[in-house]
Amino acid sequence: MSEATTPALGRPRADLDETVFAATLRSVQELGYAGATMDRIAAAAGVAKTTLYRRWPSKGVLVTECLAHTFGRPPAPGTDWLPSTDPREAYPAAIRWVARKIGEPGVGAAFAGVFTDAISDPPLRELLLHRLQDPYQAALQQALGEPSDRFLLHVDVIAGTLLHRLGIRGAPMAEADVEGLISLILRDVP
Amino acid sequence: MSEATTPALGRPRADLDETVFAATLRSVQELGYAGATMDRIAAAAGVAKTTLYRRWPSKGVLVTECLAHTFGRPPAPGTDWLPSTDPREAYPAAIRWVARKIGEPGVGAAFAGVFTDAISDPPLRELLLHRLQDPYQAALQQALGEPSDRFLLHVDVIAGTLLHRLGIRGAPMAEADVEGLISLILRDVP
Repeated sequence: MSEATTPALGRPRADLDETVFAATLRSVQELGYAGATMDRIAAAAGVAKTTLYRRWPSKGVLVTECLAHTFGRPPAPGTDWLPSTDPREAYPAAIRWVARKIGEPGVGAAFAGVFTDAISDPPLRELLLHRLQDPYQAALQQALGEPSDRFLLHVDVIAGTLLHRLGIRGAPMAEADVEGLISLILRDVP
Repeated sequence: MSEATTPALGRPRADLDETVFAATLRSVQELGYAGATMDRIAAAAGVAKTTLYRRWPSKGVLVTECLAHTFGRPPAPGTDWLPSTDPREAYPAAIRWVARKIGEPGVGAAFAGVFTDAISDPPLRELLLHRLQDPYQAALQQALGEPSDRFLLHVDVIAGTLLHRLGIRGAPMAEADVEGLISLILRDVP
């Protein structure tokens, strides 16, 4: 795609994205979601604020794209976090994978912050659904053959539990509790 | 306690609290957590900003106290949301009660916002634990006789799931899904 190599401030776009996304997570980790303003992120990335706004019109959009980049492509069966299409093997792998990702510096706080903003921002909610929920849902649900309602409840349970624990403890969930969460989900899978 | 009737701006303190807490939830509902600044809350409550800061040193503290007020006293067996000390009756009642509370205007967004702030603010996290988690934990865990680790995981699952759904959908969880969450928790209770 030629767009990916369009220079912005003399850099290819993919490089700009990498630099800004890393600066976004670093700023959220250091300053909290509220403190990580577009100004601070631009300064941390060493780019002009106008460059930031040209590519991402708001902090909510930037953080959503940053998280989509961090989580990467939707899982295909046989990869790291979908080693099997048997829900009893796939759920534990996926839950451990998400727990590790949410535990990476800045990721959990960015996630919790953008979800909070989305409560009162319908366009941001649409973007979150479109960029973070829909692709994974389509891939996982098809692979696992889970009914939609139960699958979406499990998504809320897994992400919500990990984020709530992060908010309450200020640290990612301990492994023993991640295993407790896995057992709880598996008891809900026939 | 005489402190409760100390006038602030000519009003008893309990009246001031009521007015400010109502203005806090209204502002969060209308403007989102990030938009509901101390300035906007003071204006919505019709009090001076100095009055607000004299009583609550930061927005995080104000919102935490507002939520503690909204959730009310820890449950005693036989009341509305703890009709029984049998976990199989108590959990469904407690989950439906929390789901209703989180669905009240402004409450879910205030909850999600203050949790997000707490990730990067250790003193706020302490206050959240002290004011919102510990009293309920003590009361509920004693009544239900649940082991601490499992009980705390269930707290994360219940609150996290309800808040995540609110962030993703912008609306409280539908009753059918609340019942799905109840089934999931009950399958984890011996």
